[in-house]
Amino acid sequence: MAHLGSSVEYALHCLLWLVDPASGQPSSRDLAELQGVSPSFLAKIFPKLEKAGIVGAAPGVKGGYRLGREPAKISVLDVVDAVEGRKPLFDCQNVRTRCAVFQDGPPRWASSGVCGIHAVMLRAEQSMRQELARTSLADLAAGLGTKMPASFPAEVQMWFEGRVGQRLEARSGGDRCAHGPSTGPPRRRRR
Amino acid sequence: MAHLGSSVEYALHCLLWLVDPASGQPSSRDLAELQGVSPSFLAKIFPKLEKAGIVGAAPGVKGGYRLGREPAKISVLDVVDAVEGRKPLFDCQNVRTRCAVFQDGPPRWASSGVCGIHAVMLRAEQSMRQELARTSLADLAAGLGTKMPASFPAEVQMWFEGRVGQRLEARSGGDRCAHGPSTGPPRRRRR
Repeated sequence: MAHLGSSVEYALHCLLWLVDPASGQPSSRDLAELQGVSPSFLAKIFPKLEKAGIVGAAPGVKGGYRLGREPAKISVLDVVDAVEGRKPLFDCQNVRTRCAVFQDGPPRWASSGVCGIHAVMLRAEQSMRQELARTSLADLAAGLGTKMPASFPAEVQMWFEGRVGQRLEARSGGDRCAHGPSTGPPRRRRR
Repeated sequence: MAHLGSSVEYALHCLLWLVDPASGQPSSRDLAELQGVSPSFLAKIFPKLEKAGIVGAAPGVKGGYRLGREPAKISVLDVVDAVEGRKPLFDCQNVRTRCAVFQDGPPRWASSGVCGIHAVMLRAEQSMRQELARTSLADLAAGLGTKMPASFPAEVQMWFEGRVGQRLEARSGGDRCAHGPSTGPPRRRRR
C-alpha cells in the first residue's frame, strides 16, 4: 500500500474544484459525483479538512463546502496532514536496545538519543515534507489552468448549478427521496 | 502503518553487525537471536538482500552471511529497495480523467502527461530517496562506533564465536536436534 492513499488524492482533487469561486459551494456528494468517486468515502474526508480549517461548511439547500483560506495558503502538506494525520515514514522499534550481549538490560550508550537508523529516516521524512509544503493549491490550480480550454470553467460551473437546481426543485415539491440523502455537509448534533 | 516497515529496520540492524569482519559470517538465526527479533521473519529478508548483492552467503556449519560489497557502497536506499521493492509513496488513480463533464471520455488535455498532484508526490518521493541514498552503512557504523565502548566489538565477536562453537559441538556428536533447524542461509535447490 502506498504511504499517501486515495484519501489524499481525492481531497486534493476536490479542493481544486473549490479554487474557482464560481463553483459555488458544492456538497461532498456533488464533488464525488463530478469526479466518479465514492460519496461515502468523500463524506468522511471533508470533516477532517473542515477541522483543519482547509474548508468551511455552509448549511442549507445551496450549502456545501468552500475553501477555508486562500488557495496560496493551503499547501499539499496541509492537506496530507489533515487527511492522513502525521503518519510517520518509519516506525522505529528501538531494536538496538534488545542485543543479547546486554545481559543486564541496555546500557545508556545503546538507548539514549535517537537511533542512527531512525535519524536517517527522520531526515528523509523531513525532506519529503518540505517538498510537499513547497506546492500550494494555488500552484496546482495555476498548472491546471495552463492546460484546460478557456470554456472548461464555465462548463463545470453549469454542472454545479444544475445540481443546485435539482436540489431546489426537489425541495419545492418534487419527490425528495429521488435525490437520495442530504447532499450538504453533515449537520452538527444539538447538545 | 509506516511506509518503511520492520523489514527495513531489521535488515539495517543486521547489516550493521556484518560491517566488522571479526563478526565472522553469522547466520540469519544468529542475527535474530542476538537482536531479539523473529528468526523466521529475518530468514525471509536475507534472500532479498542476497539477490540485491548486499550480502553474500557461505554454506556449511561455519557459514552464514557476509557483506556483498564495501559498507561505504551500500546505502540505506539500497537496503530499502532490496527489502521493500520500489514501493511508491503515492499510487495515482488518475481521478482527473473521470470528470462527469467529460461526457465523451476524457479529452487529451485532461489525460496526457503526469497529473499535477502526482507530480508533486513524485518530487516528494525523489527527495526522500535522495536523502536515504546519502547515508551508507559505513556512515551508520561510524556513528555507532563513536557511542559504543571500546570493549563492545570483542564482546559481540565472542557471542558469535559461541554460536559457531555450539553448532560445531552439535555436529561432532551432540544432539543436533537440540539446536533446531539449519542456521545457515537457505540452500539452493538442485535442478
